[in-house]
Amino acid sequence: MPDTETAFQRFGQRMGVIRDLAQAAAVLSWDQNTYMPDGAHEARGQQLATLEALAHERMTDPDLGGLIEELEGAGLPEESAEAAMVRQARIEFDRATKLPADLVEALTRHTARARAVWARARHDDDFGAFAPELERMLELKRRQADALGYQDHPYDALHDVFEPGSTAARVKAVFEPLRDATVELVRAIGESQVEVDDAPLRQAFDEALQERFALDTVRAFGYDLEHGRLDRTVHPFATSFSKYDVRITTRYQRSFLNTALFGTLHEAGHGMYEQGIADAYYRTPLEEAVSLGVHESQSRLWENLVGRGLPFWQGAYGRLQRTFPGQLGSVDLQAFYRAINRVQPSLVRVEADEVTYNLHIMIRFELELALLDGSLAVADLPAAWNERYRLYLGVTPPNDALGVLQDVHWSVGLLGYFPTYALGNLMSVQLFEAVRAANPDLDDDLRAGRFGPLLGWLRENVHVHGSRYHPDALLERATGSVLDAAPYLRYLERKYGAIYHLGPATA
Amino acid sequence: MPDTETAFQRFGQRMGVIRDLAQAAAVLSWDQNTYMPDGAHEARGQQLATLEALAHERMTDPDLGGLIEELEGAGLPEESAEAAMVRQARIEFDRATKLPADLVEALTRHTARARAVWARARHDDDFGAFAPELERMLELKRRQADALGYQDHPYDALHDVFEPGSTAARVKAVFEPLRDATVELVRAIGESQVEVDDAPLRQAFDEALQERFALDTVRAFGYDLEHGRLDRTVHPFATSFSKYDVRITTRYQRSFLNTALFGTLHEAGHGMYEQGIADAYYRTPLEEAVSLGVHESQSRLWENLVGRGLPFWQGAYGRLQRTFPGQLGSVDLQAFYRAINRVQPSLVRVEADEVTYNLHIMIRFELELALLDGSLAVADLPAAWNERYRLYLGVTPPNDALGVLQDVHWSVGLLGYFPTYALGNLMSVQLFEAVRAANPDLDDDLRAGRFGPLLGWLRENVHVHGSRYHPDALLERATGSVLDAAPYLRYLERKYGAIYHLGPATA
Repeated sequence: MPDTETAFQRFGQRMGVIRDLAQAAAVLSWDQNTYMPDGAHEARGQQLATLEALAHERMTDPDLGGLIEELEGAGLPEESAEAAMVRQARIEFDRATKLPADLVEALTRHTARARAVWARARHDDDFGAFAPELERMLELKRRQADALGYQDHPYDALHDVFEPGSTAARVKAVFEPLRDATVELVRAIGESQVEVDDAPLRQAFDEALQERFALDTVRAFGYDLEHGRLDRTVHPFATSFSKYDVRITTRYQRSFLNTALFGTLHEAGHGMYEQGIADAYYRTPLEEAVSLGVHESQSRLWENLVGRGLPFWQGAYGRLQRTFPGQLGSVDLQAFYRAINRVQPSLVRVEADEVTYNLHIMIRFELELALLDGSLAVADLPAAWNERYRLYLGVTPPNDALGVLQDVHWSVGLLGYFPTYALGNLMSVQLFEAVRAANPDLDDDLRAGRFGPLLGWLRENVHVHGSRYHPDALLERATGSVLDAAPYLRYLERKYGAIYHLGPATA
Repeated sequence: MPDTETAFQRFGQRMGVIRDLAQAAAVLSWDQNTYMPDGAHEARGQQLATLEALAHERMTDPDLGGLIEELEGAGLPEESAEAAMVRQARIEFDRATKLPADLVEALTRHTARARAVWARARHDDDFGAFAPELERMLELKRRQADALGYQDHPYDALHDVFEPGSTAARVKAVFEPLRDATVELVRAIGESQVEVDDAPLRQAFDEALQERFALDTVRAFGYDLEHGRLDRTVHPFATSFSKYDVRITTRYQRSFLNTALFGTLHEAGHGMYEQGIADAYYRTPLEEAVSLGVHESQSRLWENLVGRGLPFWQGAYGRLQRTFPGQLGSVDLQAFYRAINRVQPSLVRVEADEVTYNLHIMIRFELELALLDGSLAVADLPAAWNERYRLYLGVTPPNDALGVLQDVHWSVGLLGYFPTYALGNLMSVQLFEAVRAANPDLDDDLRAGRFGPLLGWLRENVHVHGSRYHPDALLERATGSVLDAAPYLRYLERKYGAIYHLGPATA
């Protein structure tokens, strides 16, 4: 046992150094996206590449591999945090060592190139310019999937990095019934006689006041400013430099209240997750969200289930009206609640409402599968994209810039990633139902601005565990069920059935 | 030659990685001092320690030592930049490898401890609490000096790190006549019938307006905001993450104009130096100021020789009056010029004027020498400090908090450092005289707000060279002379003779 202790200590030191490097890189990226002067991008790219290379060098060190192997054979209790750390390190070690160096380098080089070409192609509305870059990216990602290994579909290898244990087949099984029911719901809403007007949200709102309201709100939720901060950026994100420094960013639109308000609630949801990881996991492989889906479940829960819900605004709307008396003083709570929940099939994912959002994801998922296994040619992608938008959402992109070129993801090699957004939506409702079952006073709490019981439940059942448990196990421990789209669908039908006065037949 | 080329390439890659690590650490430190939330200090300390350890590991790698040796024997032309890179790397390699690991660790550990004890001791005005920490620090620094090696005095080994080629003997030879003449000048000013009133500077000044004026000014000087930015901090500094990202910070006092104004000009002087290093030296050992004295010469030149000079304000004062019409509208230029140049012997270095500043430095230099060689006991330090303040400046600290405990330097092991502030003052005037000789229209330029010719001369003669030349050689190339206190003294006597109406006998 003293041998195991020594080995575990050395293991902990090595993994700690790797985390320090990754977190230093995260600081550099945060700075790059918030305060860095424009002339510094190339030098910053070099610094990030060096930190990444050093972390990779350490992560693939055979001595580390030996330590992991030794600890795997040391009989650590299966349920212990230590065993979980070793399991997590094994996953990271294997993933890092399985990829041949020339592939890693080719991916890094091609990503920089493809991203730049994509940005220009989107600007010029010229899919043809991007097509060869996407071809090449698919080829590299297929090689990556082969190197990582998979059973059924190359997609599985890529997807598993973001959502451990999930596969294309499972996503499909969850998505397909949800898709058909959602398409039906969107159609029913479209045919409803009820008109929801979001004009109250589209007035001039002072940015400093928007910031103060959003910050007051997330502080009340429990986002800890002793271990975090809010800055401005073009593309909002949350990032962690250890659980003691978890920052969020947002952007402001003077002419539209939703962008900064719901954006900040969303990022704070991510932030509270990482702030809530157990102290004992600091600098270990467990100081990390367990999956992107679970991460997104936290952001969506605070953004949508709390932040777009009636109880929260029954408590908070007076404060918002006092912040913007000229704009909202004469808008009543019901009108405001309906405005922030307006359903409108649209072309662009990032602006989509709760009902239509998942359809945007499913389109990307279906197309990505087909691209990867070769059943869809890159040249046919724009037509396939537009066809699905017409079928699922009833809208047709007027051009590729507003269609297939809208997202950065494929250009930077983020394949296998999109479903996590929708999985997060589904889990957010599963978790919220579990909270409600444990605390029947949830709505009263939200009305009264008491967020402690909700955050406490999430802390205890999700946040504190970091990546100690498999995502499936975590969800089952927390909710008693496996991943399931039915609660999300029920939630949509109930909420939007009321807003749009849908009969029980369609809702 | 192909062998040398390959070796030089490998050398360049290794040194580049070391620089990337140091610059990443600089980003983390900048963040720590500007935006980092309070709860993150411990984790940030850990991240910085890891980056430092990795950089040290790489800097002491025997393979790097072998490469340096190979390149030293490869016959690179002595005057080439490549040879200078190898020389600089040799200095850094030797310095890193000469220190035993246990000493480095002891210094790191003791620094953290001594700094904390010093802060408490200063707060409590309790020198006795700090004394044993200072004892221990002196012991470690003596060991460090022994390890680094020196000829005459242990001070030389420590001082050389900050001011290559300089020694205690040389500093003494420069300081002693300057000290006597300065003490004389201070006495004459004190006996002058002229009263200079700085009340106009001690009014309420809106901080945002202070910031805008200072930023407009340094932008006009030539501080490049495409490759830099200005933020707020408690202890102002300039820092570089490569020559493409050189940031400055400042602090604001609402009730005293000088703090932010001259502080920003000072830091911008540092910043413009690092922004001006040759592109060819990016990521090489030459992308670095050649010495702290030269660095300070640049900050002092812009802060004092430009920023406290009459020609500059003949051009800029109208703008300042329009920024603060209520406070300065009825203060005429001469009254303002005199106010910003008020001479007042005081207890505290950082607030000292141009005349008395160097005396603060000399006191520290003399005491440090005596502490290091054991001719002064730590227990006797406060009395020796107070005695010298009485002798040189005619003031006596009422307590140690305002006396010997005022500076952080000794607590963090910065011995051999203080003289560089005064050397920078001396060099700033030597350089300014050389600029004037090359450009007789200098004052007209400053009056007209044309700073390009001045910055251009500094770029060409100082900045662009980075650490390519020895500091002595750089100064001689730029000014035609070696380090010399006479120009500084002449400058003081002329400027302050006029302000205080001193007769030619004393001035």
